[in-house]
Amino acid sequence: MKLEQLVGERFKEKPSDCVIESHALMMRGGYMKDVAKGIYSQFTPLKRICHKIENIIREEMDAIDGQEVLFPVALPASLWDESGRYQSVGNELLRFSDRNGTKMILGMTHEEAAVQLVRDYAKSYNNYPFMIYQIQTKFRDEARPRAGLIRVREFTMKDAYSFHTSQEDLEQYYQICYDSYNRIFARAGIPEVVTVASDSGMMGGSLSHEYMLLTPIGEDSIAICEECDYRANMEAAENRVENQKDAENEPLTKVYTPNIHTIEEICDFLRSPLVKSCKAVVYQKNRTDDYVVIFIRGDLDVNETKLTNYLGEQVHPAVITAECGLNAGYIGPVNLHVEGNYTVIYDKSLEGTNNLSCGANEEEYHYTGLCMERDVPEASYVDVAKIIEGGICPKCGKKTIHISRGIEVGNIFQLGTKYTKSMNMQYLDTEGNSQYPIMGCYGIGVGRLAASVCEAHHDDFGPIWPISIAPWQVHLCCLRADDTEAKECADNLYQELQKKHIEVIYDDRNVRPGVMFSDADLLGVPIRLVVSPRNMKESVVELSTRDKSVQDKVALSNTVEAVQNLIQKLLDDIDENVKKAE
Amino acid sequence: MKLEQLVGERFKEKPSDCVIESHALMMRGGYMKDVAKGIYSQFTPLKRICHKIENIIREEMDAIDGQEVLFPVALPASLWDESGRYQSVGNELLRFSDRNGTKMILGMTHEEAAVQLVRDYAKSYNNYPFMIYQIQTKFRDEARPRAGLIRVREFTMKDAYSFHTSQEDLEQYYQICYDSYNRIFARAGIPEVVTVASDSGMMGGSLSHEYMLLTPIGEDSIAICEECDYRANMEAAENRVENQKDAENEPLTKVYTPNIHTIEEICDFLRSPLVKSCKAVVYQKNRTDDYVVIFIRGDLDVNETKLTNYLGEQVHPAVITAECGLNAGYIGPVNLHVEGNYTVIYDKSLEGTNNLSCGANEEEYHYTGLCMERDVPEASYVDVAKIIEGGICPKCGKKTIHISRGIEVGNIFQLGTKYTKSMNMQYLDTEGNSQYPIMGCYGIGVGRLAASVCEAHHDDFGPIWPISIAPWQVHLCCLRADDTEAKECADNLYQELQKKHIEVIYDDRNVRPGVMFSDADLLGVPIRLVVSPRNMKESVVELSTRDKSVQDKVALSNTVEAVQNLIQKLLDDIDENVKKAE
Repeated sequence: MKLEQLVGERFKEKPSDCVIESHALMMRGGYMKDVAKGIYSQFTPLKRICHKIENIIREEMDAIDGQEVLFPVALPASLWDESGRYQSVGNELLRFSDRNGTKMILGMTHEEAAVQLVRDYAKSYNNYPFMIYQIQTKFRDEARPRAGLIRVREFTMKDAYSFHTSQEDLEQYYQICYDSYNRIFARAGIPEVVTVASDSGMMGGSLSHEYMLLTPIGEDSIAICEECDYRANMEAAENRVENQKDAENEPLTKVYTPNIHTIEEICDFLRSPLVKSCKAVVYQKNRTDDYVVIFIRGDLDVNETKLTNYLGEQVHPAVITAECGLNAGYIGPVNLHVEGNYTVIYDKSLEGTNNLSCGANEEEYHYTGLCMERDVPEASYVDVAKIIEGGICPKCGKKTIHISRGIEVGNIFQLGTKYTKSMNMQYLDTEGNSQYPIMGCYGIGVGRLAASVCEAHHDDFGPIWPISIAPWQVHLCCLRADDTEAKECADNLYQELQKKHIEVIYDDRNVRPGVMFSDADLLGVPIRLVVSPRNMKESVVELSTRDKSVQDKVALSNTVEAVQNLIQKLLDDIDENVKKAE
Repeated sequence: MKLEQLVGERFKEKPSDCVIESHALMMRGGYMKDVAKGIYSQFTPLKRICHKIENIIREEMDAIDGQEVLFPVALPASLWDESGRYQSVGNELLRFSDRNGTKMILGMTHEEAAVQLVRDYAKSYNNYPFMIYQIQTKFRDEARPRAGLIRVREFTMKDAYSFHTSQEDLEQYYQICYDSYNRIFARAGIPEVVTVASDSGMMGGSLSHEYMLLTPIGEDSIAICEECDYRANMEAAENRVENQKDAENEPLTKVYTPNIHTIEEICDFLRSPLVKSCKAVVYQKNRTDDYVVIFIRGDLDVNETKLTNYLGEQVHPAVITAECGLNAGYIGPVNLHVEGNYTVIYDKSLEGTNNLSCGANEEEYHYTGLCMERDVPEASYVDVAKIIEGGICPKCGKKTIHISRGIEVGNIFQLGTKYTKSMNMQYLDTEGNSQYPIMGCYGIGVGRLAASVCEAHHDDFGPIWPISIAPWQVHLCCLRADDTEAKECADNLYQELQKKHIEVIYDDRNVRPGVMFSDADLLGVPIRLVVSPRNMKESVVELSTRDKSVQDKVALSNTVEAVQNLIQKLLDDIDENVKKAE
């Protein structure tokens, strides 16, 4: 199509609310427009990119025997009541009532809908295994939508659900999906995506992986071993510790510590290192407001995801009241007193340690010489600590953990029977016994993937789209459209390229070359052709790639073939990456 | 794919809640499943049909310079406040609040979103004309969803919006779109769709057309002239009347009519025809409850759409209270008295008539001899009557109106400046003056189109899908899959057909031929291939079409070519229809 007709504004200034490059470039390039907080309309270039991504996903899902279906956006609350998630999921689940007062929700994920669709069908073992998927709009009422398409409220997502009669069969298919995802990201132009072990969160189930594009602007933290292949989301990463124990136990001694409230202050005051302290962190359960007191080594932090998984319920940072019995700033494991029901948790970082400083549960007093074994003999220890930079790799045991940041572009979960049990989906096995099928689920956000590709591949002037998902394959510029010869040549090229089914965006506006090129940079089309009066004199056309790896002049008579060859080369490069990903 | 793996149930019994064939067949064939009232999940066969319909629409929209975009499903109420529709549209607009209490709606149409997307961009006349479209999920909280995919609450729709700088330019594009729609319906396999003039309803604007599949089960009534090409939705059809006037005016005479309340009863009692009576029909305005009294010829009914358009506001049938001054059953134009504000409307069917019977506005009394000119000299007359079977064609003037029923499969509207004015979208014209662009909008419901094709093309055993939108092109049956030779032959055919990129659903289950064929009938795939031991003996394969127009045996060695030829023939038939539609 002609650029002149392309609907959408392009501009130079970085919008002030854009904190990441992909967001800024996609706003500046006329890819999308805000409609509400975290809700965007898409202009044609972005729609074309998403359409191509969807087709790649569709092909790969079909290739692993996926069957495309469609679930509704608006779902009855009763369906989510069956699984228990109508109650358990927070405000990000948008709840509303229809005109008859029936409670409804907007789908943010479709496990319930998937089970509802197939539970009457898959009643016999010989219906299994199967996988169904959809590409559909989802709504997640995020408290803090941000970073453009990275964290939005409304988005298009591919979500797939597989059903199996054994854990082995699920695991086998899970691996097939795992590989398929690597192919999808390679085909979309970001083979650099890595997988990390992750926490299953509200999805339930046991094993799960996230596909991460590592980038400093990512909102997930990932623990990566620099020696072995261990990679895990911080939320899921096990924290290994080498606990130090002094040879001799000091006596437990109460120390007067006026105006000292934090573990850092007490360690400063005592000139003792943080690792020789026992810090208290206090939460309350969301459901009951019961207190949860965690004791952890002073230099470590609590991983709330691991804590929540351990407790089996949601928590929030505590409000410590005058009546609760806790002395904020002076909480310790010895002589701890809390009114009402409460839970005490000891992190593994304290196991077997001694000579620690800690609160004395008394205003303005701390203890020194805390020996866990001697002074808190009843303690049992669990891992609720965040893994740290330089920490111990849970796989190879070396102190080689590096914390990176990443954008989650996909995830896969082994769900087990959480949904089939709660929603009473059963089949008869070969012996005629009723069984609950075992599920897996597999998601990719289409818009977020587009933004991630932009984040990974751009320069100061715009995105550099891979040929496989670029809005067009070729950007044809006619410099000096007022020059009859140049215009005629460019018009001909435009026709000829289209005849060869090449997707061309054609800029024949009467504007300065600077405007033309900055618009082309913002549209990020991988191949650029420039026709100009100067080139015409030499009977050549400039052929280049957006990433400047190719900057050629080709004979006018040979242009279409040269473009075809270059397209093929770029596609081959992608295929190369797909093969490597396999 | 193999039928054995196809997710979804097929069954024989017609579900009791299915009142139309397409609904019953699509439930019986495993195309969809209820999730809530008027909300369905789609199984793979329906998803594939819809996907093909969407691609046809996309190609045709691109061919008339449409640019595909995407608007959100969830929209801020503030956007609909700008146009006034947040207030004016009824309960079918689903309103809700997000987690922050911001008022939102689910998009049932996207005029506001379209204007919001482009109003900052299209500021100069040389940005015009342009058309943007989307294919997206919509939600309309219907009071009475019914008839399967014909009237649902959640649906996928293609909606397009064009923007112009003059009425002439809009009209020119409107015609292009008009033709494009005819091509779309022909390509989807229902060239029999007709256009009818329609009422613009809540969309605003002047001229509009609906595309109707004529069928007795349709929920729209259409006035069709059997002599000329006049076709209009009943809601929009002008009612022409030949008013009879007797040579002599009788005197206005009050008659005692005890226990007579309806116009039929009074005409019976007086032994006078209905056309010689003046009937009163009473409404109230929704906004104010003010009474609206319509006088109309006794044999005609009020067309509420025309009435609403005339009044410029919504009405409901009146509740006649003791205090309002109206004598229910005895209301007439002479000595009419109503308390408070009220409106009286005289339908054109009364203009110049005389010697009518009518109510006397007095309990148990009617008049005879009403002469409109003499007795109601102040009356002016408007057309608010429903056109009737055998009525006068507004175009050719003959009494040749036939009332048919139809399903609306698409619509096109000339919107004018309703949205651009209310939402303050302006551009500078060639003289530098600010102007409001003129809009058109163009819709097609994807699921309803699929159901309409099924309604138009099915037999007792299942749908007969046109090749252009069929879930698969070929249905391959292997009778007696336990016969090694037959199975091997069918397996080979399955492979070979797929190699030729032919879409095959392959049934190699070990089931009775009856089950196999009834399943094939329900899936409605246009071309059927049957491999059986008996055919193997003759080295032939049965090749037939779902509509039985082809029932051949072809040499095994020649099967793939025969299938390719048949596909081409079916595609050519569609092309033929497309050409006729142009």
